[in-house]
Amino acid sequence: MKITLAHGSGGKSTSDLIKNIFAKHFGNPILNMMEDSAVVASSSKIAVTTDSFVITPLFFKGGDIGRLAVCGTVNDLLMRGATPKYITSAFIIEEGADSDTLEKISASMAKTAKEAGVTIICGDTKVIDGNGNIFINTTGVGFVGESTDIVSTNLREGDAVIVSGTMGDHHAAVLSARMNIENNIKSDNAPLCRMVREMLKDGMEIHCMRDVTRGGLGTVLNELADSSGVNIEIEEQSIPVKEEVKAFAKILGLNILHMGNEGKLVAVLPEKQAQQAVEIIKKCPYGENAAVIGRVNKGKGVTLITPLSGKRQVNVLFGEGLPRIC
Amino acid sequence: MKITLAHGSGGKSTSDLIKNIFAKHFGNPILNMMEDSAVVASSSKIAVTTDSFVITPLFFKGGDIGRLAVCGTVNDLLMRGATPKYITSAFIIEEGADSDTLEKISASMAKTAKEAGVTIICGDTKVIDGNGNIFINTTGVGFVGESTDIVSTNLREGDAVIVSGTMGDHHAAVLSARMNIENNIKSDNAPLCRMVREMLKDGMEIHCMRDVTRGGLGTVLNELADSSGVNIEIEEQSIPVKEEVKAFAKILGLNILHMGNEGKLVAVLPEKQAQQAVEIIKKCPYGENAAVIGRVNKGKGVTLITPLSGKRQVNVLFGEGLPRIC
Repeated sequence: MKITLAHGSGGKSTSDLIKNIFAKHFGNPILNMMEDSAVVASSSKIAVTTDSFVITPLFFKGGDIGRLAVCGTVNDLLMRGATPKYITSAFIIEEGADSDTLEKISASMAKTAKEAGVTIICGDTKVIDGNGNIFINTTGVGFVGESTDIVSTNLREGDAVIVSGTMGDHHAAVLSARMNIENNIKSDNAPLCRMVREMLKDGMEIHCMRDVTRGGLGTVLNELADSSGVNIEIEEQSIPVKEEVKAFAKILGLNILHMGNEGKLVAVLPEKQAQQAVEIIKKCPYGENAAVIGRVNKGKGVTLITPLSGKRQVNVLFGEGLPRIC
Repeated sequence: MKITLAHGSGGKSTSDLIKNIFAKHFGNPILNMMEDSAVVASSSKIAVTTDSFVITPLFFKGGDIGRLAVCGTVNDLLMRGATPKYITSAFIIEEGADSDTLEKISASMAKTAKEAGVTIICGDTKVIDGNGNIFINTTGVGFVGESTDIVSTNLREGDAVIVSGTMGDHHAAVLSARMNIENNIKSDNAPLCRMVREMLKDGMEIHCMRDVTRGGLGTVLNELADSSGVNIEIEEQSIPVKEEVKAFAKILGLNILHMGNEGKLVAVLPEKQAQQAVEIIKKCPYGENAAVIGRVNKGKGVTLITPLSGKRQVNVLFGEGLPRIC
């Protein structure tokens, strides 16, 4: 069935679409109430984040827009040390989209939400003119412990910088799909709940975490260095990158440090805990390639140490850099 | 300045756009932190709602997409008896949109958020190909009192049904703008915080509230009747409608009962409190035309009593009905 503008009217067709696709896959006692808003239990401190997903194509090796829409938002909650609890799901559908596609995406969202331990508590459906594209906004709510204070202004001289795995996978996978290049590169889109929970449980004193998405590691590290007024020095050889992604980036002239991921985090914590944190992450799903990649110094900006001991400045992404990877 | 895909890259251009427009208008200590998620104080019970706004045109008599995006979400929180607290703001911008337009919309959102008493705590910006359209998703969080239980399954035989004002204004205003019809019809888009707060404060035992948006009063009342397994009987002559909206609907053959509003609520409460509730609403902004319009009976569906004592069934909206009024 093709989606038409009538499915966005708020009347019978909208209600049928919601019943036959969204309620079928997302259904739970809170959502099924179909009230104007969902009323749920909370904690005294919450994290809230919002993200829209406009990726092309909708499906790519290793994932799809539905999985991405859950992971992206869940990971943003985790980066403040929150336990992700609730997620909202708002679809903007261009007329002509196929209901089977919508159903596949919904099934993937539901599966990923289950993996991440979040409940989809409310939603919205709009239909606009267009060419059958699908856009999803998810907003997440997580519970934050009273004493948790993980924030980008917390970096201190002597801290270590770690990443949870290889850089650039998602970016390379989406670009490959868009350019019809056949290769084995898969997106890394994944919820990072387990590794964050285990690190906090084991007493890692994380000063700051960020998931490395649009703009890539270079942009994220620059933001952190700016916020805390410090320099971050990273070693090129320590940054985990899959061989095929490295080759792909080289052929196309892309800078791995500006390539986005959707299932990787960077964490900054006291140097004495860095190796232990890496070991914890390595035991968790999606963390097998975790590594210490650098340290926090006095100064400003981000410095890359190259294998022959050269030093160069890493800038934030300037220009386009494949805007629709999420 | 025209918005380009580069503004959605997550790099320097995105950061400039956020700084120059969104931070300028929405700026507050929480948002200014620019973290992956906002950490805020909460209460033990919260209401959460999400809504995307895809209206054409972006500006119309009495309002704009920015005001609408705040009102729609704030009102959905209020309908569960929540006090609106936080709101998120996620823009999907089609390439070619003008930054001045974006700025006007942002200013309007900020002003409306202030009126409604909500803080914009996080946001997201994506840019897609297209023709300069702008879409906004807002998700709201409100605090709910422990004993508050306002829900569509609560309707009881003998309850009264009230509306907070005239029906169809927003729908008629948007349709006029789209068809270039010159008239005096203004959208009713408004946050309904005050009237809800005053009713609850004065002890009105509200069983259920809904804001009358897409699908119109007919669709909303049918949903309530369904949820509670009751019949709702409304008197045609009691339903407030502005003369010019009535005339507009007549000329175009539109059914007022299927025309959406963006600043009107329907409330169901014990009959003995109905008149008092109407008086309370009348004293609040946007409530001057409040009225009792019907009652809850045994049975099912929605029945309209016409002036000459005719009775007919009111259906939910079927078909298109101007999908992009919000």
